Amino acid sequence: MSKGNARQLILGAMMFFPAGEHISSWRHPVSEAERLLDFDYYRNIVETAERGKFDMFFYADELYVWDRFESSVAQANSIRPEPFTLLSALSVVTKDIALAATVSTTYNEPYHIARKLATLDYISKGRAAWNIVTSQTDEEARNFGKDRHLQHELRYERAKEFVDVTRGLWDSWEENALLFNKQTGQFADRSKLHSLDYKGQFFNVHGPLNITRPPQGHPVLVQAGASEAGKEVAAATAELVFAPGGSLEEAQRLYRDLKGRLGKYGRSEHELKVLPYLIPVIGRTADEVAERVAIVEDLTPESLGLDLLSHYLGRDVSGYPLDQPLPFIPEIDGFNQSHTNLLKIREWIQEENLTLHQLYKRAANQRVFGGTPEQIADYIEEWFTKKAADGFNVAFPHLPGALHDFVELVVPELQRRGLFKTEYTPGNFRDKLGLAKPANRFAAARDKESIRI
Amino acid sequence: MSKGNARQLILGAMMFFPAGEHISSWRHPVSEAERLLDFDYYRNIVETAERGKFDMFFYADELYVWDRFESSVAQANSIRPEPFTLLSALSVVTKDIALAATVSTTYNEPYHIARKLATLDYISKGRAAWNIVTSQTDEEARNFGKDRHLQHELRYERAKEFVDVTRGLWDSWEENALLFNKQTGQFADRSKLHSLDYKGQFFNVHGPLNITRPPQGHPVLVQAGASEAGKEVAAATAELVFAPGGSLEEAQRLYRDLKGRLGKYGRSEHELKVLPYLIPVIGRTADEVAERVAIVEDLTPESLGLDLLSHYLGRDVSGYPLDQPLPFIPEIDGFNQSHTNLLKIREWIQEENLTLHQLYKRAANQRVFGGTPEQIADYIEEWFTKKAADGFNVAFPHLPGALHDFVELVVPELQRRGLFKTEYTPGNFRDKLGLAKPANRFAAARDKESIRI
Repeated sequence: MSKGNARQLILGAMMFFPAGEHISSWRHPVSEAERLLDFDYYRNIVETAERGKFDMFFYADELYVWDRFESSVAQANSIRPEPFTLLSALSVVTKDIALAATVSTTYNEPYHIARKLATLDYISKGRAAWNIVTSQTDEEARNFGKDRHLQHELRYERAKEFVDVTRGLWDSWEENALLFNKQTGQFADRSKLHSLDYKGQFFNVHGPLNITRPPQGHPVLVQAGASEAGKEVAAATAELVFAPGGSLEEAQRLYRDLKGRLGKYGRSEHELKVLPYLIPVIGRTADEVAERVAIVEDLTPESLGLDLLSHYLGRDVSGYPLDQPLPFIPEIDGFNQSHTNLLKIREWIQEENLTLHQLYKRAANQRVFGGTPEQIADYIEEWFTKKAADGFNVAFPHLPGALHDFVELVVPELQRRGLFKTEYTPGNFRDKLGLAKPANRFAAARDKESIRI
Repeated sequence: MSKGNARQLILGAMMFFPAGEHISSWRHPVSEAERLLDFDYYRNIVETAERGKFDMFFYADELYVWDRFESSVAQANSIRPEPFTLLSALSVVTKDIALAATVSTTYNEPYHIARKLATLDYISKGRAAWNIVTSQTDEEARNFGKDRHLQHELRYERAKEFVDVTRGLWDSWEENALLFNKQTGQFADRSKLHSLDYKGQFFNVHGPLNITRPPQGHPVLVQAGASEAGKEVAAATAELVFAPGGSLEEAQRLYRDLKGRLGKYGRSEHELKVLPYLIPVIGRTADEVAERVAIVEDLTPESLGLDLLSHYLGRDVSGYPLDQPLPFIPEIDGFNQSHTNLLKIREWIQEENLTLHQLYKRAANQRVFGGTPEQIADYIEEWFTKKAADGFNVAFPHLPGALHDFVELVVPELQRRGLFKTEYTPGNFRDKLGLAKPANRFAAARDKESIRI
């Protein structure tokens, strides 16, 4: 187990779309988009990430086909394997890399999710993580019997309850509750089994969970919200925060903001790690970088680029002239998708006066950072040492090629600089991150009680 | 692909409790109960079943800890891995055996289940099956925000809708909907994507599903209900029926009953296979059989045996004298757990006048059949040839040992008799069973439309 307070660079390998992070990754000349339902495709990717000593494979998820626009079905990819089914299979072919499942708290039940994450933690021998999301769209609501997506504040309230219930269920069985005494017939010590009996605004869950406490105690919690409500959920519960990126100064501000909120929850700074988003486009020379960035920036057809922007803004922009700025500032009031995205686009409109053409290009290619391996390592080093990041959630403009490049070219450079480990630390994901195993709430309550007596 | 109409003996390897089918399997001298959360334990079991050419690994599930009684926590085992997480991992280490996941239609959402089964079908290359259950107890309801379990008739109504929605979602994408045309930027043919737009009594689901049609079209559907409502759901939708066993005559009656219901749904007899339950206790000699049966019958402590009977009857029997028959006949009216179990116990009370001691022993050991390998093969052969069964869902008094014995001793005997295959048929699970790939409802509707025009 590494020392809890020593900072170590953490790298996640992110998969948003199976072909890569970019909205049009599937179209990249060397992507293997047609293998998106072939298990060996994912196996190759996660094995490559493990070879590169990535700490985590971070698998995004959505609960709908993006069919709001003609282009979004015809030109984008809304197909993906379901996270638990995929990650569990991947755990069998890996040994050290953690596996982060994205699970929405808005369209799930905590009992199911507590079981699945606990089972994944057992099968992977302590490598499960949970990327807690609240979902984004009305399309998702309509797949689960609702007309509209749950309102922004309410879904963070629900998320808080969901996480609390799930953690409580994980504590159902104390560590040494199972006896397996064939002689006496005692399977379990009944006094070490606890019903949660949770009654809340969103959930009534009796418990106990029908699986014992996961190897990590609780799988590692990841959260990505950058809104006020999201940051509070993160400070209260998350151990890894997936941050939006942006400028160094913005990232430093968010980093300080998040770490500063921990005290009131009785947590210290090293208990929450901040991992901004990065999409490196790697070239061996400046020319190769420019050429490769141009390929990525040209992937998205105009129709899809405009529709993506309309989606982010919640307002159709397809009728406006391409060579002029949009004649309106999008409103945040009443907007029920990602506020973070909308605010960023508002900034580009208000501060840079981009034309519509520039704006949709920017929206489709945000976070793309082109550089040589040295430049990318410089970027990572600067953000890490200047406390804008504890590491990065690295996403790839195309898969598996861009991950392969990162592992071959950037990782050795980071290792040469002494920034990144050359071998995995032994133990489960918490051990590797230097995070303590959470106390069991029921055992802790009883111990406190007996001290008082 | 085998001929659809030729009868072939089908064998499922069933796991109810991880340590075996018997309520007290964990206590068997050679069970490996303490490995119940060790993936290699399951891996060994499913690899052994595959070595024995079992058609299917059938994994049961429940959504609660059986904590109704002191004994049920202290002496029984309510811990188990979650099905999708477990089966997906097992699919990586196997090649031919199908993997049947038990999923409750009462406490799930079809969109999640359609995705998970489709993903399992892709990862396993067409080996997914779904054991459709409606759950049994109020304990389960209380883990999902309800006070009481959904009433018997309603939960079968819900099950029918759930299956209909799930099958509709699997048809969201026609087979050749994905184009992957990097040149033109066309990812998909929009005309081959369909929204389900389902509005029912229990579910409103818009669709489409965010994964394409599974390799089998639809994973194989398994159902176990033996009540009137259950048999109708089976006749309408199931491809494998997991039957309760009982006497040869009872099994023949159920077999004819189920096959006789298929016509009204436009289905033929070979499209539904009936697999009764069997728990063989195998010995090489009559003495060894008797000794091994005695071990199994003595596993259950009296307290647990009585509580199990109380559970089945929905009424506490622990206060009655053990050496006399129960002084009441349990009522079926208003009883909301398994009717099939209750009716069988009523029969034993009414027709055999068993003492309470005999009755709880019988309840704990029902379906146990002791025999030499030849006797067990005789039993299987008779049921198969006399049309009481198309095969068996074989359960094991302890694991992995009893499965190992079956594979070493009974399977070769069945093969010698020409009753059971010596090699797997190529192809996916449907191909192996001689079941046709279901038509896509949207493609079929359009084809019909164009013929009319």
